[in-house]
Amino acid sequence: MKIGVIGGGQLARMMVPAAVKLGLEIEVLAETADASASIAPHRVGDTRDLDTVLAFARGVDVVTFDHEHVPQPVLQALVEAGTAVRPGPEALLAAQDKLEMRRRLDALGLPVPDWTHIGSVADLQRFLDAHGGIAVVKTARGGYDGKGVRVVRAAAEAEDWLAGDIPLLAEEAVRFTRELAQQVARRPSGELVVYPLVESVQRDGVCAEVIAPAPRGGRVAQEAARIAATIATELGVVGMLAVELFETEDGQVLVNELAMRPHNSGHWSIEGATTSQFEQHLRAVADLPLGSTELRDPWTVMVNLLGGPADGRLDRAREIALATQPGVAVHLYGKAPRPGRKIGHVTAGGADLDDVAYRARSAAAAFD
Amino acid sequence: MKIGVIGGGQLARMMVPAAVKLGLEIEVLAETADASASIAPHRVGDTRDLDTVLAFARGVDVVTFDHEHVPQPVLQALVEAGTAVRPGPEALLAAQDKLEMRRRLDALGLPVPDWTHIGSVADLQRFLDAHGGIAVVKTARGGYDGKGVRVVRAAAEAEDWLAGDIPLLAEEAVRFTRELAQQVARRPSGELVVYPLVESVQRDGVCAEVIAPAPRGGRVAQEAARIAATIATELGVVGMLAVELFETEDGQVLVNELAMRPHNSGHWSIEGATTSQFEQHLRAVADLPLGSTELRDPWTVMVNLLGGPADGRLDRAREIALATQPGVAVHLYGKAPRPGRKIGHVTAGGADLDDVAYRARSAAAAFD
Repeated sequence: MKIGVIGGGQLARMMVPAAVKLGLEIEVLAETADASASIAPHRVGDTRDLDTVLAFARGVDVVTFDHEHVPQPVLQALVEAGTAVRPGPEALLAAQDKLEMRRRLDALGLPVPDWTHIGSVADLQRFLDAHGGIAVVKTARGGYDGKGVRVVRAAAEAEDWLAGDIPLLAEEAVRFTRELAQQVARRPSGELVVYPLVESVQRDGVCAEVIAPAPRGGRVAQEAARIAATIATELGVVGMLAVELFETEDGQVLVNELAMRPHNSGHWSIEGATTSQFEQHLRAVADLPLGSTELRDPWTVMVNLLGGPADGRLDRAREIALATQPGVAVHLYGKAPRPGRKIGHVTAGGADLDDVAYRARSAAAAFD
Repeated sequence: MKIGVIGGGQLARMMVPAAVKLGLEIEVLAETADASASIAPHRVGDTRDLDTVLAFARGVDVVTFDHEHVPQPVLQALVEAGTAVRPGPEALLAAQDKLEMRRRLDALGLPVPDWTHIGSVADLQRFLDAHGGIAVVKTARGGYDGKGVRVVRAAAEAEDWLAGDIPLLAEEAVRFTRELAQQVARRPSGELVVYPLVESVQRDGVCAEVIAPAPRGGRVAQEAARIAATIATELGVVGMLAVELFETEDGQVLVNELAMRPHNSGHWSIEGATTSQFEQHLRAVADLPLGSTELRDPWTVMVNLLGGPADGRLDRAREIALATQPGVAVHLYGKAPRPGRKIGHVTAGGADLDDVAYRARSAAAAFD
C-alpha cells in the first residue's frame, strides 16, 4: 500500500515516521526540492496543476494531503480517474471554503459564531451595525495562520478586499475565554476515534502552545467531541479532522475553523497519545483499523518554534535545547529560520502541568 | 548535519524517524534497492567495497552503521580519508571479532564465560575435557542470530569448521537462568547514558521477546550498568552499545555478546523510553547532547515478528493485529515474509506486566 501525499510541508514530513512504522510506502508531491518532506521519496511539482497531480496519483494507491490548496477541479479529476482521494473533494470543500463550511455547519445545527456572506460595503456595514460595530472579515479561501483574516470596526477597513472579486464572509468577533481544538479520525467504513480535547494558545493568529488534555474540560469536552464526531460523520471526512473551537464566557463552544489533515493542535500526540495523529491519519486513509487515542501522560504541552534563533544558528539552538531539557522531545522540520515561520516544535509530558509547561517552554526558549 | 548509515536493514530504517524528528539529514548505503531502509534517501552498493564506501562517505558528515560487516581495511581507509566514523574502527573490532572481544573484556577484568581460542581438534578436546564435555564453539567473525554458533559434546562436531581457515573460540556452556541486555549510549565527549536493564527471551538463538525493565533487576541491574558503562568508556564506543548478558544460577552476570549500534533488545525503547535507542544513536554519532532514558510505562514488552504469516498475507495480518490490539504499536520493516526472517515487531506498555505481555503476544499472534 503506497500513500501519496500532496504537499511537502512539515505535516507530510511527520507522516514519514508513521509510514516507516506501519510498513506503508509513502511518496510526496512537494512544491520544491528542499521542501520539509523531501526526506521522503518525493517528486517535485506544482500541486495545483492537473497533469502533475494526475501523474503523481497514478503511482500511488491512495492520495491524501499536507494542505488544503489543491483546487477542486483537480480533486474532481482525480476521482474521475479512479484515484482513492481521502478525504474526498466534497468533504474537503468545507475545509477549503469558509462560506461552504459555515453553511454546512448551520445545516447540521452545530454552534458557530454569527456570520454572513458579504458582497459589498453595505453588507459589511449592516453586519457591523448588528454586532456592536466590530466584525471579523475572512476571505472564504486561502487563509491560514491568521492570513486572510481581519478584525474590522469600519466597513472601509475591508474595502480593498470588497473591491476584489474574492468571496468574503463577516463573523461576529466572539468574546471567547480560550481556544480549544478537538481532533477525531474517521475511516472510510465510518469507524471513528476521538482524541482528548486540547487547549490551544494563539499569538498573533498563530498557534503558540497546546495543552493536552484541555484543563477543566468537563462538559465542554463532551460537547466538543460530539461536534467533531458529527462533522466527521455528516461530511464524510476520511482521515484526521481538527475542529478549532472558541469557548465563550458562558461556557458554550463555537466552531471556528476546520482542517481535514493532521493539524498543529495535534502535534502533542506524537509523544502524548498512544497513536499519533500522523499514524492515525495514515491508518484512516489506508483504511486500516484506527489506534488508541489514550493519553500517555497526565499532561502534555507542545510549544511551537516560530521563526528560529535570531542569530540563525539552528544547530546551536538545538544543542542547547537538548542539553538543558534531556526529557523534552525536539522536532525540527528541516526548514531555514525566517521570522514567523514554523520551523519545529517541542513537547514535554508528565504528571505536573506547571513543571511540564516549564520544561517545554525552557526547551523552546533555546530557539528564541 | 548529514548522517550516513552503512547498511540498509531495519536498524537503518528505524533511524529515519529519529532523523526526521531531530532535523538531521540521513542517507543510507543499502545493499539492495528494495532494502528495508530504502524508504530513506539512499544509494545502492556493496557495503564491503572500499571505493563504494569511500564515495558514499564523501557525501555525508558522519558515518555510522546498521551492521558490523564493514571490513576493517575499509573502516581504516575511511578514517584516513578524514571521515568521522562512529563508532570508530578500533571499538568496532570488538563487536566484529569475538576473540578480540573476549581478550579485551578479560583485560578489563569483566565477567565472561570461560573461553579459549581453538586452532585444532586437540584444542577443542582439551576444552571439552575441562568443562564437563560440553562447549559452545563460535566463529570469531560473521555470526549473528544463532549463526556461527554451535553447541558441541565432541570435538568431531566442529571438525568442518576446524578444517577451514576460520578463527574459532570455544566457550563454556553457561548454565544461565535467563538472558539480559544492557544498553548505554556514549558521545565522543564521553557523556554516557544508561538504559534500564531488560530481559530478553531467546528462541532458537534468536531474540523472541524483550521485557523492560528486567523483572527482579535489583543488584544485577547495577552490575549490568557498571559493565556496559565500563565497556563503552574503555573501548571508546560512540553511539549505542548493547551488552548481552547471561544471569547464572548464583546471581552472577557474564557478558555474552556486544553490538555497537541500535539492537533488537532496544526496540522497546521507541515507545517505552523517553528517548528511543534510534534517536539516542543519532544524537551520539552527531555529537548532540544525549536524551533521557527514563521508562515511559512501568512495563514494556516487545515481541519480534519472525517469518510472517504462513499464508504470506502480511497486509491481512497487520489489519488483524491493529484491529484486535488498538493500543499496541505495530512496526513492520517493509520486508517480505520468509521463514525465520525478522519482518517487524510489536510493543505494548502499561502498569500490569501480565496484561502488557498478553497484549503484545496477542498482536504478534496475528502474524503467525
